[in-house]
Amino acid sequence: MSTESRIWTAALVVVGDEILSGRTQDKNIAQVATWLGVQGIRLREVRVVPDDVDAIIEAVNTLRARNDYLFTTGGIGPTHDDITVDAVAAALGVGVVIHPKARAILESYYATRGGLNDARLRMARVPDGADLIENRVSGAPGIRAGNVFLMAGVPGITAQMLDSLTGQLEGGLPLLSTTIGCWVAESEIADLLRETEKAFEGVQIGSYPFFREGRTGANFVIRSVSNEQLGACAAELERGLDALGRAPVAGGI
Amino acid sequence: MSTESRIWTAALVVVGDEILSGRTQDKNIAQVATWLGVQGIRLREVRVVPDDVDAIIEAVNTLRARNDYLFTTGGIGPTHDDITVDAVAAALGVGVVIHPKARAILESYYATRGGLNDARLRMARVPDGADLIENRVSGAPGIRAGNVFLMAGVPGITAQMLDSLTGQLEGGLPLLSTTIGCWVAESEIADLLRETEKAFEGVQIGSYPFFREGRTGANFVIRSVSNEQLGACAAELERGLDALGRAPVAGGI
Repeated sequence: MSTESRIWTAALVVVGDEILSGRTQDKNIAQVATWLGVQGIRLREVRVVPDDVDAIIEAVNTLRARNDYLFTTGGIGPTHDDITVDAVAAALGVGVVIHPKARAILESYYATRGGLNDARLRMARVPDGADLIENRVSGAPGIRAGNVFLMAGVPGITAQMLDSLTGQLEGGLPLLSTTIGCWVAESEIADLLRETEKAFEGVQIGSYPFFREGRTGANFVIRSVSNEQLGACAAELERGLDALGRAPVAGGI
Repeated sequence: MSTESRIWTAALVVVGDEILSGRTQDKNIAQVATWLGVQGIRLREVRVVPDDVDAIIEAVNTLRARNDYLFTTGGIGPTHDDITVDAVAAALGVGVVIHPKARAILESYYATRGGLNDARLRMARVPDGADLIENRVSGAPGIRAGNVFLMAGVPGITAQMLDSLTGQLEGGLPLLSTTIGCWVAESEIADLLRETEKAFEGVQIGSYPFFREGRTGANFVIRSVSNEQLGACAAELERGLDALGRAPVAGGI
């Protein structure tokens, strides 16, 4: 691994009263995180904020300043509670305009669906100067404003927008990972985990315990940008578990 | 509804590289959110931060200052990557001590499980002055330090800790909700939603669209602390949908 390789980072702001009320189980965090990993970009922080302009502005301005990219999900639809475009425009200090191409996309999409009304036209509003992110499912596009990417709240639509962005964003070396499982209480092998991690520079080992069928086990997730370091660390951990009489399970349990 | 009733708020810090990598689908946000709602406490913000002491300190100090309660999940186990106790102690400006009762609980729990070793004793460490939150599943307790509540990362264990806390925290009026579904594009009835919300003080209507079996629909979630306002607003929205020839579905679709 080259130690001077730059690490690219992103943050995510999930706009959603429905997540904070517990009504809806969020799916976008895992989806955006996984997609970013493939692009060689690390998700560094997520904030879930209410449908409140000031809360969105604060989160957007803090996180866009300290990451290469900032994503938002939610609040870009046609109804009164969709306020993300206004909040991001305010955060960027620009106005809100109707994007002509977005308007044309919506006109075409709704031509056979009752026509473009005022509510639907709201989905053509973007922060001044922004570009569109294509969405093949529902017409309404996502929005790119500087390093801020506004995506839908509905996970299936966000998936389409991420697909449109695939390969478009500069990233660094992807963080690789491998998992070793073991039927052992993590508290029995804490020393082994710490010592093994220490022996391999730039490698992290996460320990994720579980209880299944009355038995205690754990998965150890090893992460590195270097396949070589990853493989060597995994082999060392497997040897250590074997030496303690605890059979490692490659790939995890 | 009494307009002078105080609103109690909470925030949640999810400590977890495994969530940010996309490997693990978070379950604790919805679980904590739902539990808080029953206690009459509103979840105002969630931050997912990496296993990094400085990141945890920043999130804890920002959020505990502006909410009545702050919860954390993750990072209180026995291994090297469990750093939440140290980070919260640093955020509070106190040292870390072994809690005698936690030590006794762990000694008893591990008496028939190989005994208390150094790694397991880590789970008795608390910010100085903290109290314990009982956990009937795995021995290791949760921790209450001032208005900060440290819970496990494993959702089943967090559930036990929340159960121990039920009825212990002062809250206000619970935010009540009711849902009305409709096979309609939300963009067709955006005016109705906005006008109906405006007509009922202290009521919010959230619109959550979906696509199922090739059809467009939406659920409208009405929230209020007053059952009377909630019922009146729901009835008004149902009348409005009926008037547009769109059958409302009580309880949602």
